Amino acid sequence: MPNAHDYAKAHADDFKAQLIDLLKIPSISTLSTHAKDVERAAAWIIDDMTRIGMTRAEIFQKADFLPLVYGEWLGAGEDAPTVLVYCHFDVQPAEISDGWDTDPFMPTEKDGKIYARGAVDSKSHVVAHLKAIESLLANGGAPCNIKLLFEGEEESGSEHIFEFVAENQALLKADAIVVSDGSMPAVDQPTLVYGLRGIVTMQLTVQGPARDLHSGHYGGNVHNPIQALVEILATLHDENGTVTVDGFYDDVLELTQEERQTLTPIAPFMEQEWWDVTGAKMAWGESEFLLHERTGVRPTMEFNGIAGGFYGDGFKTVLPAKATAKVSCRLVPNQDPQQIYKVIREHIQRVAPQTVTVTLDELEMGARGVLLDRDSAPMKAAYDAYLRGWGVVPIFSREGGSIPVAEAFQRELNTPMVLLPFGYKGGGAHGPNEHVYVEMFNKGVQTAIHFYEVLPTL
Amino acid sequence: MPNAHDYAKAHADDFKAQLIDLLKIPSISTLSTHAKDVERAAAWIIDDMTRIGMTRAEIFQKADFLPLVYGEWLGAGEDAPTVLVYCHFDVQPAEISDGWDTDPFMPTEKDGKIYARGAVDSKSHVVAHLKAIESLLANGGAPCNIKLLFEGEEESGSEHIFEFVAENQALLKADAIVVSDGSMPAVDQPTLVYGLRGIVTMQLTVQGPARDLHSGHYGGNVHNPIQALVEILATLHDENGTVTVDGFYDDVLELTQEERQTLTPIAPFMEQEWWDVTGAKMAWGESEFLLHERTGVRPTMEFNGIAGGFYGDGFKTVLPAKATAKVSCRLVPNQDPQQIYKVIREHIQRVAPQTVTVTLDELEMGARGVLLDRDSAPMKAAYDAYLRGWGVVPIFSREGGSIPVAEAFQRELNTPMVLLPFGYKGGGAHGPNEHVYVEMFNKGVQTAIHFYEVLPTL
Repeated sequence: MPNAHDYAKAHADDFKAQLIDLLKIPSISTLSTHAKDVERAAAWIIDDMTRIGMTRAEIFQKADFLPLVYGEWLGAGEDAPTVLVYCHFDVQPAEISDGWDTDPFMPTEKDGKIYARGAVDSKSHVVAHLKAIESLLANGGAPCNIKLLFEGEEESGSEHIFEFVAENQALLKADAIVVSDGSMPAVDQPTLVYGLRGIVTMQLTVQGPARDLHSGHYGGNVHNPIQALVEILATLHDENGTVTVDGFYDDVLELTQEERQTLTPIAPFMEQEWWDVTGAKMAWGESEFLLHERTGVRPTMEFNGIAGGFYGDGFKTVLPAKATAKVSCRLVPNQDPQQIYKVIREHIQRVAPQTVTVTLDELEMGARGVLLDRDSAPMKAAYDAYLRGWGVVPIFSREGGSIPVAEAFQRELNTPMVLLPFGYKGGGAHGPNEHVYVEMFNKGVQTAIHFYEVLPTL
Repeated sequence: MPNAHDYAKAHADDFKAQLIDLLKIPSISTLSTHAKDVERAAAWIIDDMTRIGMTRAEIFQKADFLPLVYGEWLGAGEDAPTVLVYCHFDVQPAEISDGWDTDPFMPTEKDGKIYARGAVDSKSHVVAHLKAIESLLANGGAPCNIKLLFEGEEESGSEHIFEFVAENQALLKADAIVVSDGSMPAVDQPTLVYGLRGIVTMQLTVQGPARDLHSGHYGGNVHNPIQALVEILATLHDENGTVTVDGFYDDVLELTQEERQTLTPIAPFMEQEWWDVTGAKMAWGESEFLLHERTGVRPTMEFNGIAGGFYGDGFKTVLPAKATAKVSCRLVPNQDPQQIYKVIREHIQRVAPQTVTVTLDELEMGARGVLLDRDSAPMKAAYDAYLRGWGVVPIFSREGGSIPVAEAFQRELNTPMVLLPFGYKGGGAHGPNEHVYVEMFNKGVQTAIHFYEVLPTL
């Protein structure tokens, strides 16, 4: 159906104007003062869904949460596959005083880029899909059925979408799920992320004496809880950075030679980003794994925070009553957060000295990692769509972070999934001068059309 | 000269009234709003020195510090020994809302005790010495020359007395120094503390990446500075609590069998206090040393504070840029703070990983420990004075804390010294309901008279 592609090209200025229109709405979900703006953005989307010919466009909203927009077009018929697309339309806060060159809610086009909060994260994804669907529906319809789920509280913790997904499995039933969020490592390098890590978070507390003591009087005869804490924490890794907890790696899938080769093309991007971002002296970690493998395919244990005693300016000769550390593990697919928490607790109990009281509390329900099938129909469709839309062979990657909604889809819907971002990592998500290249937005529209067209042929 | 003792007994009520008078002045040196009250207390002391017949009474004060009061009576003649007495007349802050039953600056007598801020720390020492001297001077004079050095900024860090002592060695020249501060372990157990620990303080900083990073993206390939810090700190002690730094114990004097026996009587007091105060599950430390020896005769290394990353409520998946620890060593006599800092720095440099930047900064000039000669004339005079004044055989002790001015006297004046406190540890120094037993104050006056009488006979 070449008409949809031509239509999109002919309407590129109009599509850009609509993106700019949506970017003007400060739909900041983390600030309750902007709740009405999130609703305005939802209404804008509903209007557009209706206008372009979707047959259902509905806001799901309970009293205490922000709107979730659902839209569908099932005109391809029962024999055609159904695609469920996820994006989010809420944004992070932004003020010009954060270091922006222009007003973050007055979208400004310059050097082929549109600067605005939400430009790359993630309103360009929302509009690209809507405009791809418009292009298809205006040119004889799409060859697959389409369900859209656009979230309004992704930036504020996605508090309600998990419940919504669990309760609406029939509504969300599909043959393929597309999550359009995130970014590719460079403007001209579409990338298929097929792995995300899970997480389990906990707090380790060492209680020593009942109160803060004078270190002159009790140093040497009362076990210092900071000392006990650091000695416990120091037992958790070996000098190679490998976690030493019994059972920690039991369920980790081996990295095959085939997968290692599949991931090789991402290495230079990851290494460049590492040098650009971290400012660290040199890389660190498990020596038998490459840099991108250490975060992509290996679980880790991180110490995210530690505190005890007096840590302001100057000095206090205190022997404190307690010390705590925040600990998290990034988990790879096939690891169970509860099992990991259990083996760590057993390790802590074994090494904890009798002189102090040591407790390990789980802080949140953990999340499993996500591993997507590289041979599924949506993955193949995404590969093909990127190749046609970008004109570049996409590469594969596994990432170290999490996309919680992807984990919820995996857990609740049992449907082949693909991540299909149109932005790039340099787009300044969450920072000042966030922007999207107009060209990437246009390619995103074309790529989405290709995806909808290719999927039914596989 | 029994007349001085009888005089003191006959004037006990008057002496107590004068103590109460001084206690009413809120001479809080840590609050600049009370600077005038510290000056009022100094003036009160000058008046009393003059009234009781001291031949010199002078305030030493520079623009930016609180008064230091110097008094002298040299009427015993050139052949008689000279005693230099140190006490302090400034106090810690106190408000009734801190948990006091009565106004801390409205001294209240109840059950044989006077409740007031400064009662035990340390105005009862100031007044006991003044009243002992009054009793002697009113009854034919003292058999020794007396110099009094009363400090007004002990509670706020003794910032200027060290310089004063260094610059006034001729003025302060004496044959014996008496430091009347601190406390005995029980009301009826006078104790000769002949050892105090020194200290050296430092800050260990581990700088990892240039900025806080997302632990999902960089966990596993950037060395986490909290992890590096705890692993470094964990190398500093063995499982017995012994410091593992090469050279740390090189200059520590062996505990002889004789000294071990000398210290045995203090053990039950120290152990009782340990259980009363700490609330810890069980004792900890070097197993080859008893509880009181671990703080009295052994150096230690304490972790007084630690901080890094996110340590509030909840969780942030941050891989922080840096982490720090405050480290102090309590030093025993014969150890040099600079040498200890040096060997620790060498140890840290040896174990520090190359992946992070590790720095160890000394925070203050350290202080040496103090070890007093148990066979000196002032020590023997103090033993005899306690025996007569309290009617109890004094015991010996070495304490874990520091008295900085004692270290300054040792460093600058090279004069035999003794610590001669009249308070007890239960007196609530620095806490609410601080109090002194009237009976202990009276015994303090008698003990001071005995000391001034006995010293010239040795």
